[in-house]
Amino acid sequence: MNQRMYGLGSKSSVIREIFEYGKRRAAEIGAENVYDFSLGNPSVAPPQAVEDAIAQLLQGKDMTALHGYTSGPGDMATREAIAAHIRGSFGVPADAAHIYMTCGAAASLTISLSAICNAGDEVITFAPYFTEYKVFTETAGARLLALPSDPATFQIDFAALEGALSPKTAAVLVNSPNNPSGVVYGRETVKKLAALLAEKSAEYGRTIYLISDEPYRELVYGGVEVPYLPAYYKDTLVCYSYSKSLSLPGERIGYIFVSPQAKDEAALFLAVCGAGRALGYVCAPSLFQKVIARCQGMTSDVSVYEKNRNTLLSALTSYGFTCVRPDGAFYLFMRSPEPDANAFCEKAKQYDLLLVPGDDFGCAGYVRIAYCVSPAMIARSLPAFEKLARSYGL
Amino acid sequence: MNQRMYGLGSKSSVIREIFEYGKRRAAEIGAENVYDFSLGNPSVAPPQAVEDAIAQLLQGKDMTALHGYTSGPGDMATREAIAAHIRGSFGVPADAAHIYMTCGAAASLTISLSAICNAGDEVITFAPYFTEYKVFTETAGARLLALPSDPATFQIDFAALEGALSPKTAAVLVNSPNNPSGVVYGRETVKKLAALLAEKSAEYGRTIYLISDEPYRELVYGGVEVPYLPAYYKDTLVCYSYSKSLSLPGERIGYIFVSPQAKDEAALFLAVCGAGRALGYVCAPSLFQKVIARCQGMTSDVSVYEKNRNTLLSALTSYGFTCVRPDGAFYLFMRSPEPDANAFCEKAKQYDLLLVPGDDFGCAGYVRIAYCVSPAMIARSLPAFEKLARSYGL
Repeated sequence: MNQRMYGLGSKSSVIREIFEYGKRRAAEIGAENVYDFSLGNPSVAPPQAVEDAIAQLLQGKDMTALHGYTSGPGDMATREAIAAHIRGSFGVPADAAHIYMTCGAAASLTISLSAICNAGDEVITFAPYFTEYKVFTETAGARLLALPSDPATFQIDFAALEGALSPKTAAVLVNSPNNPSGVVYGRETVKKLAALLAEKSAEYGRTIYLISDEPYRELVYGGVEVPYLPAYYKDTLVCYSYSKSLSLPGERIGYIFVSPQAKDEAALFLAVCGAGRALGYVCAPSLFQKVIARCQGMTSDVSVYEKNRNTLLSALTSYGFTCVRPDGAFYLFMRSPEPDANAFCEKAKQYDLLLVPGDDFGCAGYVRIAYCVSPAMIARSLPAFEKLARSYGL
Repeated sequence: MNQRMYGLGSKSSVIREIFEYGKRRAAEIGAENVYDFSLGNPSVAPPQAVEDAIAQLLQGKDMTALHGYTSGPGDMATREAIAAHIRGSFGVPADAAHIYMTCGAAASLTISLSAICNAGDEVITFAPYFTEYKVFTETAGARLLALPSDPATFQIDFAALEGALSPKTAAVLVNSPNNPSGVVYGRETVKKLAALLAEKSAEYGRTIYLISDEPYRELVYGGVEVPYLPAYYKDTLVCYSYSKSLSLPGERIGYIFVSPQAKDEAALFLAVCGAGRALGYVCAPSLFQKVIARCQGMTSDVSVYEKNRNTLLSALTSYGFTCVRPDGAFYLFMRSPEPDANAFCEKAKQYDLLLVPGDDFGCAGYVRIAYCVSPAMIARSLPAFEKLARSYGL
């Protein structure tokens, strides 16, 4: 058998391990006494519009068509609805011919990377970063180069980026709002990034693509703007997923948008289609393609996440912990009061607080706290966080 | 960008091209005058049980859980239902721990091949074979060796197989009932295959896996038996899909069953999990995982396919065409009356008969006729087939 695959299957994710521990612990002492902040699973239901769309579609006459194959890039009406939403919301050119429907964000990324990369290429991302980026990049035959961010803000360290870009760079992969830091890249950052990539593409005589992984686009708080990257950099692929915005993570539905302004965009889109084919993706799930066509611009009630962020951030800070203020997503990235975040997480476990060490996100000395949980659980967990802080003399 | 992916995306499938031609032609002369036998898209609706299961699930209280992530290998209740069905129907050991839920047959195959193969390995299959086998095998870093079948019966040519097996052979990939020939491998064939693979595995000191691609398992006619391969050969992976049996091709739902009797089965299952992860499959679509758990052992009304087979086979034979009698699936593989099946398909087009040349299935001189169409269309098409036969002097 294949040893890379065996390795990936047997080294189960740290997040999943903690989650499984939490289930066992809940059976011992009651679910209400375990404060599980491990998983990025949306805690709010999909909007009613999703259930209405499913019900309406099931009342149609032609179930063979409803559940039938769509074309590889997706149902045309769905692709048109998405393109119209992109044009209307972000003021960039977009049309159905540049939308490729996928089985969610992981598929969007694996397909995009496989379409772009050749053996020996490098893909640059910024730590902390979603743990699976390394896996997906290696599937595409390339190597992930994770650069440290500015430690005070978790924004891009441009000196580090300039030093890392090279003729081997196939793509820069960004994730804003970020998992696990919650940080959003503002307009100035994006402009600077775009200018640098344009300059280096010209210098090296190869297109450096920008891949924007944005499942958390709509999960931002306090009116923060998330700049739309195709408006700033032409060689952009947007990898989108409805997992978080519509609370549909299990249904595996998302898309890739290849900017029509990208160089050789028609060929690039065909490479995306070819990568989908090569990886065994025949089409995205057909019922949910049609559902999300009817739910463009809608989201679940994400206000609960903002409330959770505010409660948790102010409490943790008052106990003496240090976090970078997250403007989006549903994660807090908190500094571990001891250098080894794994040891800190073990200690937190003694208070039945389940946190994820930052090491797997490429950022030792931090922990991720996923606050996509009920406000009641957060309230119950605060005394445990306070005791944990005291145990460190904070 | 990646040239392999660009190539796969830009060389669209011949089947799709013919299908698109059919749609244009239908706009010109009316859909009722075009006899499109190109696509293997089920023509019968899913059984009522599917719609009932969806409706019931949507009446549940917890939409967050219904549409939420399942674990990577799938929803435990679904995996248990499938394992129970396998035990009950085929009398082989099976348990939930050996079932990995997938986004359909293409995903099942790509994941299985990636779990098993290493660079430089060979995978053996028998022509005619489903066109994408080559693509999926190459994604896994291996080379597909397609052996000709016995031309009179399209059964396995064992002399050819014995000559092709080598220390490089990672797997033999079979598809019974077969797309595109409709042929089913009987018990004696399967026993002979199992004995040969066991002998060669011992001789080479490496496990040669048997991959059984069986989306057409339930589509068999006249009471023909489809032997269950894990009952005959221990190192078997079954790649199953509900696309054809429940008429859900667009919903992308299927599974891999790793036989518990396989060598190092626990490690092999982990390699399957790892391959799913590496290829960007997070979990199979959650709603349809729960739907198919409630529809084990059910099928769409496949009797229409048997009726279609009988009508078409007897008519074509009476016009002078030659086909191997298909016992299953919904395809006829007909001998072209001229050596070049592409030229024959062009001629057929003049009568608005849309057939697919066998070349892409690794079998020149034949055409595939997908009879998953309405009986009315078959009846309307017969005069055109008769004229086509006459034009060849049959």
